[in-house]
Amino acid sequence: MFNLAEYLKSKSIIIEKALKGILSECVSGTLCDSINYSLTSGGKRIRPVLVLTAWDILRIDDGKNKQKMTLENCKEIIPLACALEMIHAYSLVHDDLPAMDNDDLRRGKPTNHKVYGDAIAILAGDALLTQAFNELYKLSACYPADKVLKTIKYIADASGMNGMVGGQALDIQNDGITKVGIDEAYLYRTSSCKTGALITASVATPAILLGRDKDVKNFEGYGKAIGVAFQIVDDVLGVTASREELGKTPNIDSDNNKVTFVSLLGIEGAKNRAKEEIKKAKNFISGYGPKAEPLIAIADYIVERKF
Amino acid sequence: MFNLAEYLKSKSIIIEKALKGILSECVSGTLCDSINYSLTSGGKRIRPVLVLTAWDILRIDDGKNKQKMTLENCKEIIPLACALEMIHAYSLVHDDLPAMDNDDLRRGKPTNHKVYGDAIAILAGDALLTQAFNELYKLSACYPADKVLKTIKYIADASGMNGMVGGQALDIQNDGITKVGIDEAYLYRTSSCKTGALITASVATPAILLGRDKDVKNFEGYGKAIGVAFQIVDDVLGVTASREELGKTPNIDSDNNKVTFVSLLGIEGAKNRAKEEIKKAKNFISGYGPKAEPLIAIADYIVERKF
Repeated sequence: MFNLAEYLKSKSIIIEKALKGILSECVSGTLCDSINYSLTSGGKRIRPVLVLTAWDILRIDDGKNKQKMTLENCKEIIPLACALEMIHAYSLVHDDLPAMDNDDLRRGKPTNHKVYGDAIAILAGDALLTQAFNELYKLSACYPADKVLKTIKYIADASGMNGMVGGQALDIQNDGITKVGIDEAYLYRTSSCKTGALITASVATPAILLGRDKDVKNFEGYGKAIGVAFQIVDDVLGVTASREELGKTPNIDSDNNKVTFVSLLGIEGAKNRAKEEIKKAKNFISGYGPKAEPLIAIADYIVERKF
Repeated sequence: MFNLAEYLKSKSIIIEKALKGILSECVSGTLCDSINYSLTSGGKRIRPVLVLTAWDILRIDDGKNKQKMTLENCKEIIPLACALEMIHAYSLVHDDLPAMDNDDLRRGKPTNHKVYGDAIAILAGDALLTQAFNELYKLSACYPADKVLKTIKYIADASGMNGMVGGQALDIQNDGITKVGIDEAYLYRTSSCKTGALITASVATPAILLGRDKDVKNFEGYGKAIGVAFQIVDDVLGVTASREELGKTPNIDSDNNKVTFVSLLGIEGAKNRAKEEIKKAKNFISGYGPKAEPLIAIADYIVERKF
């Protein structure tokens, strides 16, 4: 029986060690502290875990892939894992700002701006995003330059005006002042961009780097489906979970009068929709055998999680 | 006699046409409007002009370099020019936010957050930064992939935690609450990072792309010197120019009780320091002949400008 908790933990240890290394290059005092605060304050590290897992499924069977994964023997892919976690971390820092979601609590700790002030928090987010591209550059030590460039392009698209940031903007416009036009399609588009794009990039870019173009489509299909499911479940937990369970303030969305999957479909309806997406996700990776077990388990975890 | 005003205008027309093309790819409604607002609201376009000029000096003498520059015949370098202007534009949008400089006016127009609100302004900045890397990817259509990657790395370093964003953080910490440690060296470091790094990248990266490694050092020397001079003159204009001349609120720095080159050296002392930097800058490019005339003129303009 596959133990996801153990799997996530062993991968998180690798990723957190790697993230610490990045900060050692920072020389800007308080800014470094603020970046460090958000990069090392836990979280499930789903995106970098997806990177490591997708890479592990697709890399050449040279015997090394049978060894237990350590920071040393996966270091060629580590910059990609770190970059995606850094982009995720920056998006949370900016998302929590008073001008955005105005959230005081994240992962059970005060949010970045509560500790360092709004100005440094904005800059820490900016720095994390910029530094992510620095990490991606490091991939060129082990992968062909053209594949690294494709990866950079994919991640810029996933994170930018028509990706994650675009999704955030759609989410902000879903502010309850007028609900005209905020339908299921709008919520799908919002969550595909806001959450799905970066999750999809996490599974698809290892395939791009390894030149496994045929697998990109399958992994994209998986990533898009779990991304939307993740957002739907977030909406459900927003009304059902406690502050302690979430590690952040619950119900922010209904406080902000947002239209959510729950407000449109009801709790049960939303849960069923998430399950359908997870089924879709699993279909995309059904052909990858036992190596894809963690992807199956992550998909299941997304709908079953309590926080 | 070289006419800088005409030169800047002819290059700005090319750049502004190119910037409009980028926005045509945006599908995110209000976010696109906000990005567009900041990208098309004028400015001197110094960074992209420096890109075009450095490229023009260093490219192969194949006859084409004798033609008048148009968007069509410089399109191979345009993504670099646009990327640097986008990073500059994002930094202004975030810098103007209430949490940062709290500025209502920029280039004679209301700042981005005054028009679109703080949340969309933060996201527009994030999107501009991300999209800049998308632009840089486009360089791979005309330049070797390894050179494009080096360019991306150079720009990420110049913009990130130890570059522009790091300089912004130093600037914020120069807030007048305590002036201990805010000396000339601190101001040099602040302006080298905050202003100098991106200006330096603008002249140095064309040399990197063209594989002209020996020229990188000279262009870096020029860029660093005019970058610091630019900041010193900004400090001077902050106390001598009017709101109408600046197109933004003057005296923000002394309102915020910041230590500036003017508060440390006096107006005349600061002006002289800027002139010394400009002399240094010109020395670095003295060997490039008449093609480097615009760089000389830009250096002179920086100290002579009235706004």
